[in-house]
Amino acid sequence: MNDLKTWIDVPFETDFSIYNIPFGIFSRSTEVQHAATRIGDYVIDLHVLHQEGLFEGLSLSDGVFDMGDLNAFIALGKDRTGALRMHLQQLFTNTSSVLAQNKDLQKRAFHQASSVKMHLPVTVPNYTDFYSSLEHATNVGTMFRGPDNALMPNWKHMPIGYHGRASSIIPTGVHIHRPNGQRKGPQDEWPSFGPSLKLDFELEMAFIVGKESRLGRPVKVEKAEEYIFGFVLFNDWSARDIQQWEYVPLGPFLGKNFASSISPWIVTLEALEFARVPGPQQEPIPMPYLHQQGSDSNFDIQLEVHVQTAQGVQQQLVQSNFKHMYWSVKQQLAHHTVNGCNLQVGDMYASGTISGPDKQSFGSMLELSWNGKEPIVLPDGSVRSFIEDGDTITMRGYADKNGIRVGFGEVSTKVLSAMDYVNES
Amino acid sequence: MNDLKTWIDVPFETDFSIYNIPFGIFSRSTEVQHAATRIGDYVIDLHVLHQEGLFEGLSLSDGVFDMGDLNAFIALGKDRTGALRMHLQQLFTNTSSVLAQNKDLQKRAFHQASSVKMHLPVTVPNYTDFYSSLEHATNVGTMFRGPDNALMPNWKHMPIGYHGRASSIIPTGVHIHRPNGQRKGPQDEWPSFGPSLKLDFELEMAFIVGKESRLGRPVKVEKAEEYIFGFVLFNDWSARDIQQWEYVPLGPFLGKNFASSISPWIVTLEALEFARVPGPQQEPIPMPYLHQQGSDSNFDIQLEVHVQTAQGVQQQLVQSNFKHMYWSVKQQLAHHTVNGCNLQVGDMYASGTISGPDKQSFGSMLELSWNGKEPIVLPDGSVRSFIEDGDTITMRGYADKNGIRVGFGEVSTKVLSAMDYVNES
Repeated sequence: MNDLKTWIDVPFETDFSIYNIPFGIFSRSTEVQHAATRIGDYVIDLHVLHQEGLFEGLSLSDGVFDMGDLNAFIALGKDRTGALRMHLQQLFTNTSSVLAQNKDLQKRAFHQASSVKMHLPVTVPNYTDFYSSLEHATNVGTMFRGPDNALMPNWKHMPIGYHGRASSIIPTGVHIHRPNGQRKGPQDEWPSFGPSLKLDFELEMAFIVGKESRLGRPVKVEKAEEYIFGFVLFNDWSARDIQQWEYVPLGPFLGKNFASSISPWIVTLEALEFARVPGPQQEPIPMPYLHQQGSDSNFDIQLEVHVQTAQGVQQQLVQSNFKHMYWSVKQQLAHHTVNGCNLQVGDMYASGTISGPDKQSFGSMLELSWNGKEPIVLPDGSVRSFIEDGDTITMRGYADKNGIRVGFGEVSTKVLSAMDYVNES
Repeated sequence: MNDLKTWIDVPFETDFSIYNIPFGIFSRSTEVQHAATRIGDYVIDLHVLHQEGLFEGLSLSDGVFDMGDLNAFIALGKDRTGALRMHLQQLFTNTSSVLAQNKDLQKRAFHQASSVKMHLPVTVPNYTDFYSSLEHATNVGTMFRGPDNALMPNWKHMPIGYHGRASSIIPTGVHIHRPNGQRKGPQDEWPSFGPSLKLDFELEMAFIVGKESRLGRPVKVEKAEEYIFGFVLFNDWSARDIQQWEYVPLGPFLGKNFASSISPWIVTLEALEFARVPGPQQEPIPMPYLHQQGSDSNFDIQLEVHVQTAQGVQQQLVQSNFKHMYWSVKQQLAHHTVNGCNLQVGDMYASGTISGPDKQSFGSMLELSWNGKEPIVLPDGSVRSFIEDGDTITMRGYADKNGIRVGFGEVSTKVLSAMDYVNES
């Protein structure tokens, strides 16, 4: 497989190699949003290539890359989206292709990534967040309920999840304000109102559904991946103090729904095939509807989280890997639909915080600082138990094997101070 | 106010009086879906009236009633949707109006309600379910945690809520299958898989948002109703055994997301103004961001739930009232956005089960049968602790005061047996 050479100038170790060919939505100075792919540092306008007739024979309607989101495109199905992806690889490798020969077309279709604005790749009809890392669930449970009751009795029987807020999913580069809300620590007698004092990131990945299912009809575990179009990096912003006071008995709400940030390029499941690895042994053996066979269920994707403070100090906070997930994406989707719940195109399903066995692989400040008991010291001597105003959190992810690299770029978000609740309206 | 007389033939005590003028989406034999209003037993096609030029001067774009949902219409804002509603009242009361005079137009625009199919009135970008009835929360808490710990410490400080599943919201008339899933009672040593043994309804109302808000900008309690377009009846189907096993620590998931049924006509906030009543005394006094002033916060809306069995036996199960809500819709919306969470047009916010102080006002079988300890006996001697296959659950709701009646019609759903998980795919 690793013999594809592109005639496009691509930096060494780029996430967006010829093996990737992801999909996203971009705009330039105007408000017009087109679908694009990316290779190296170039964002390539698919609408322009389509108008030029380069996709003839692929059965793509005229406006499919001109809709402001990818929903209509990915709803075409893997046969056709996959065919386009292969076709793009050919256009980018064949030095005698129409695109390789047409400098004027290149000028109109190719844009430096630094010169464009990236948007949400899909309109998200439904968003669910799972809780599928054993290490994360154990860490959090140990902190709040002690080591003997760390894992709830249900955790190893099903991929626990909850519905999240779709409206506040935002792309990389959009700043967020620290949320206000009700906070009450276990020691406080009375709740107080104000900016969250425990703002946190959660390192996650999310998959995006490309095929709808009918209400009442479960998607079986062996067919689940037919419904998965691709993946993004996902930062599930969390206000720990708000969450802790509100979450009993109905789960996280305002502690989560103020923002979730994603990387802008959907990396297809096909592009990640080479990164498959077996998942962990599951004990007890899950119920039959969660039995997975066939191809390896997990993906070896390196994940990093970095902080940059308002003073410009930078440090890597986390080095984790998507392969640590206890419950696979196949199992998540089979579980989610076993009761007949229906899927819609564009749906987003996040993994839950991805923590590994070592402390440096813990995917949240809650775990890294052990709820503030062991603050992290930055190079300038400042400390972090949670995220401070002015901090920028950047997550990166990539698979790298046998000289092939396929990555996600980054999701980067700056935290601004809380709005003054009284004066804003 | 109660002096409006329509020239249209309207049954005595109809929910759809001249004072109502709700909005919905219907179709006839073809697939074409148009927006409509309803008066008495007539569904009136707004697209046909608009094409005929009856809405000139109201600044409505050509296709606004031809889009398959009401989102674009209600996004126009209350000024314009309210103006249309008043204009329709005039068309229906003025015997010399163009509509009253044009029998041919009436023939094309008026359809017997029994001859049309009703659809979801809006595409729902986000759905949240609150938990705002003190009596319901106390009943459920007493059953599962005992009377001393019935109400969680946070309950009287904020309107507790959680995100629900938008994809499985369905209109009246759509049958549902009993969901399969993992069930484990407190006495069971191991979870089992199969059809829910405790399928339940929840009597709720939901409001629909007509105005978006910006991420990071809270909607203040005193402005919250500007964002509320109207209300529907809401049956939050619940599988108690699935829910009880899965819900710790992240809340309800598969126990809820297999279906939620709504009544098809959105009754506007304006049409319900006459039904306002004060809400209950709140003690402790909520935080300032939840202080409500001005008009009364609650609505006196009679609510009923009826069952009809496969054998045709009918019985009223519940007689409750929307006025019982402890937390008002204003407070729900102010709380939901206090952290900056943004609203989208078409968002649906359900109240949580509406239980009153008396046993007959309890809004779920869980409460009515006290989790199966006190089954309900039907006229034919059969008993119900929860809902059986073949049962049809129908909810109705209306406000009635000084000779004016404004109602919702009904949401009616038949429960079919569970799918065989092995054989279906």
